[in-house]
Amino acid sequence: MNLTSAKLASTSRVEVVQIVLPGDANALGTAFGGRVVQWMDLAAAVTARRHCGMPCVTISIDQLTFLAPIRIGAVVIIHAQVNAVFGSSLEIGVDVIVEDPDAGTRQKCCDAFLTFVALGPDGKPARAPLLLTRTEEEVERVKQAEARRAARLAARSTTRG
Amino acid sequence: MNLTSAKLASTSRVEVVQIVLPGDANALGTAFGGRVVQWMDLAAAVTARRHCGMPCVTISIDQLTFLAPIRIGAVVIIHAQVNAVFGSSLEIGVDVIVEDPDAGTRQKCCDAFLTFVALGPDGKPARAPLLLTRTEEEVERVKQAEARRAARLAARSTTRG
Amino acid sequence: MNLTSAKLASTSRVEVVQIVLPGDANALGTAFGGRVVQWMDLAAAVTARRHCGMPCVTISIDQLTFLAPIRIGAVVIIHAQVNAVFGSSLEIGVDVIVEDPDAGTRQKCCDAFLTFVALGPDGKPARAPLLLTRTEEEVERVKQAEARRAARLAARSTTRG
Amino acid sequence: MNLTSAKLASTSRVEVVQIVLPGDANALGTAFGGRVVQWMDLAAAVTARRHCGMPCVTISIDQLTFLAPIRIGAVVIIHAQVNAVFGSSLEIGVDVIVEDPDAGTRQKCCDAFLTFVALGPDGKPARAPLLLTRTEEEVERVKQAEARRAARLAARSTTRG
Amino acid sequence: MNLTSAKLASTSRVEVVQIVLPGDANALGTAFGGRVVQWMDLAAAVTARRHCGMPCVTISIDQLTFLAPIRIGAVVIIHAQVNAVFGSSLEIGVDVIVEDPDAGTRQKCCDAFLTFVALGPDGKPARAPLLLTRTEEEVERVKQAEARRAARLAARSTTRG
Amino acid sequence: MNLTSAKLASTSRVEVVQIVLPGDANALGTAFGGRVVQWMDLAAAVTARRHCGMPCVTISIDQLTFLAPIRIGAVVIIHAQVNAVFGSSLEIGVDVIVEDPDAGTRQKCCDAFLTFVALGPDGKPARAPLLLTRTEEEVERVKQAEARRAARLAARSTTRG
Repeated sequence: MNLTSAKLASTSRVEVVQIVLPGDANALGTAFGGRVVQWMDLAAAVTARRHCGMPCVTISIDQLTFLAPIRIGAVVIIHAQVNAVFGSSLEIGVDVIVEDPDAGTRQKCCDAFLTFVALGPDGKPARAPLLLTRTEEEVERVKQAEARRAARLAARSTTRG
Repeated sequence: MNLTSAKLASTSRVEVVQIVLPGDANALGTAFGGRVVQWMDLAAAVTARRHCGMPCVTISIDQLTFLAPIRIGAVVIIHAQVNAVFGSSLEIGVDVIVEDPDAGTRQKCCDAFLTFVALGPDGKPARAPLLLTRTEEEVERVKQAEARRAARLAARSTTRG
Repeated sequence: MNLTSAKLASTSRVEVVQIVLPGDANALGTAFGGRVVQWMDLAAAVTARRHCGMPCVTISIDQLTFLAPIRIGAVVIIHAQVNAVFGSSLEIGVDVIVEDPDAGTRQKCCDAFLTFVALGPDGKPARAPLLLTRTEEEVERVKQAEARRAARLAARSTTRG
Repeated sequence: MNLTSAKLASTSRVEVVQIVLPGDANALGTAFGGRVVQWMDLAAAVTARRHCGMPCVTISIDQLTFLAPIRIGAVVIIHAQVNAVFGSSLEIGVDVIVEDPDAGTRQKCCDAFLTFVALGPDGKPARAPLLLTRTEEEVERVKQAEARRAARLAARSTTRG
Repeated sequence: MNLTSAKLASTSRVEVVQIVLPGDANALGTAFGGRVVQWMDLAAAVTARRHCGMPCVTISIDQLTFLAPIRIGAVVIIHAQVNAVFGSSLEIGVDVIVEDPDAGTRQKCCDAFLTFVALGPDGKPARAPLLLTRTEEEVERVKQAEARRAARLAARSTTRG
Repeated sequence: MNLTSAKLASTSRVEVVQIVLPGDANALGTAFGGRVVQWMDLAAAVTARRHCGMPCVTISIDQLTFLAPIRIGAVVIIHAQVNAVFGSSLEIGVDVIVEDPDAGTRQKCCDAFLTFVALGPDGKPARAPLLLTRTEEEVERVKQAEARRAARLAARSTTRG
């Protein structure tokens, strides 16, 4: 029934705010990498679910890059948005921004591409709604996601047994 | 230096998205009240900090009402916004919405009023920036917050030793 | 079957002891508000369940006030007790005390009123056992809980849409 | 300065109440052993600290026995009390009771003996206050703790390299 | 069906590595005792399960000794191995080692004996596979485990009501 | 001083065992992706630290693939090993294996490549010890890591703004 459906990226975009607590930090006083990924996965999962209207599970994470450490007490904003849809899978772009609430400045400290697969009522992959693009930036996101997908498939076949 | 500053409610409004995991639930399979309050406190703390541009601490929670249980797997959206500023304290209104990501419907399941106090560099209460109102709804929020504040002060003096 | 039952407040009174660990603290080194509320909700839930002999869920939290910050390492005692019963709902008063175990002194740092509703086997609200009062203090608690309930109902109808 | 001090067991006795949440359980739906020990250690730590009026650290756990599994949703009561003092160390007896809040019955499901050492301001072991015994049961507890201590020291020297 | 089976200790030996994070620490900046026991219980549970090929539950913990505090940031290695099998129960020896990853040195900081019972498909105790010993050290472990078991049974009957 | 040092991959290889608890699972009863990544990051961090003998931080995660869901109660083994060293950074390969402890079978359910950077005493990137290869498989790992690094650098410059 989702075959003909299509949605705008803006309808599933998600913004999650977190404060880094001591329980989220490593011994250096900065947010522990695995915890940041947990927040990114959660935000992306909500985006995937909103776009698909079905349960979705993470199948891969690529080009996750930590650009700057995040200190205890920092206010962190996680943005997730659908970049492209490929049949039953979809690539979600996630950015992590640290906000200095006193100065009002923002700095990107992490980004990544997460791929989810939509699951039908039988627990098997099911076709996800198509993605409607409206702006040039959205068209560009689709193009880059396609390039990454090609690279991903190539990497799978050449650099892994 | 914050004496003359003033900010719009929209600049500090926060939206946080959470998924209810089994570790957040009680034995009935619904989100455990204390965990929901933790999420509300976190969202409100970010709003308070953004408005004030200084560290802020929660000093009270009022009229926190659970309108409907929240099941494991639910996507929860927490909205926080400054309702009114009273010298060094400010009231933040917080709503918790459950989204049915498949149907696209939303239902409010919890709301509350949290009061924070801004802390200056000496750790003492410091004057918070004034709140600029732009819409009728924002003016109404200030009026209701003032009524609650009066009731709160009265309640303190009459119903507690 | 609970229609004619009645219980003393003392039979359901609960005392919970916690130590504030670094994982419970915010970036200022004090217990994070949401965590304290989680402890209060837990203690009150046990009290409600003991009084009612049925599952109970939190429906509201009022006049929760943080009187003093609680530092990492502090020994915290949470007291919960039934203040009054209103049909299927009951108000629980909760106090949070910080104990200085070296000096032996105690200081109240938070209090609140939590309302629970008892649930019957069908998951619907069920009549809770009546509360027997034995001391003047207990009679006073009932009276104040009734005043708060009236204020709560009034607040609901006037200060919220 | 604690050389001549002495305290009654009743002044440091601790009762902690917990509800077993899904996040505390193993895959069989019962409280995970390590979590129960964490609760026992916490209760005993408060007792040790109250008796000694100094920081205390756990140095051993003996005869910890799980008598019955504890199901999700159970109300658990942890009792801790000083059994005996040996210079700078003290043995704390801890019992874990499961309460059926509906039937009002209680069943012991775990017990253990934890030994703590009191630490002076220099972080070195410091003499703990003596234990005053008032009842026959308390005298009996001291006697059994002495027997266990003798067995413990013997076990150390014979069954370990 | 496990009646005639027998396994080597080496097939179920487990090594778990953890880093002590601030959320694992007490107010003194060292790993909180209960958390260390949780890690030990987890490692021992995997060993028990591997040896038995059936679900296993912890029934006792003995001679758990903290030999040295473990600081935030430390790399901790937990070793678990079957010492002896007694019908449906088995004793697992667990060592906790702190590794200084910079200097490459290791120091034992905790050890204990945990006893598990194997559960058959009916949830009742079931006979565990026998333990095959191959080295002198393994024979010695069996002998010491038998001595501890005798002491444990004796302690149960004499020092507890 | 680490300029001339070099280490074998085998000296820093890490194996971590975890049991999936209900608190680690999503609403589908399988391990939540972010938690699995947290375990992988922890294992890789220990490997990096052991190889470098200095603090190390995660800077990227690539080709993280979830091959199969992991159910509550599963025994999970995380393997981490240095694949290659590039000046101050090093690539760690991490595999996540699910073990069926009853049948004794194992299935790979997740793998990824994590890149860490070694930090000197001044908190700046510092040269990591070289990696000695001894087996053909280790030489192959270096070659593939170099290919991935080239692809990563290319991806950075072409598919991101």
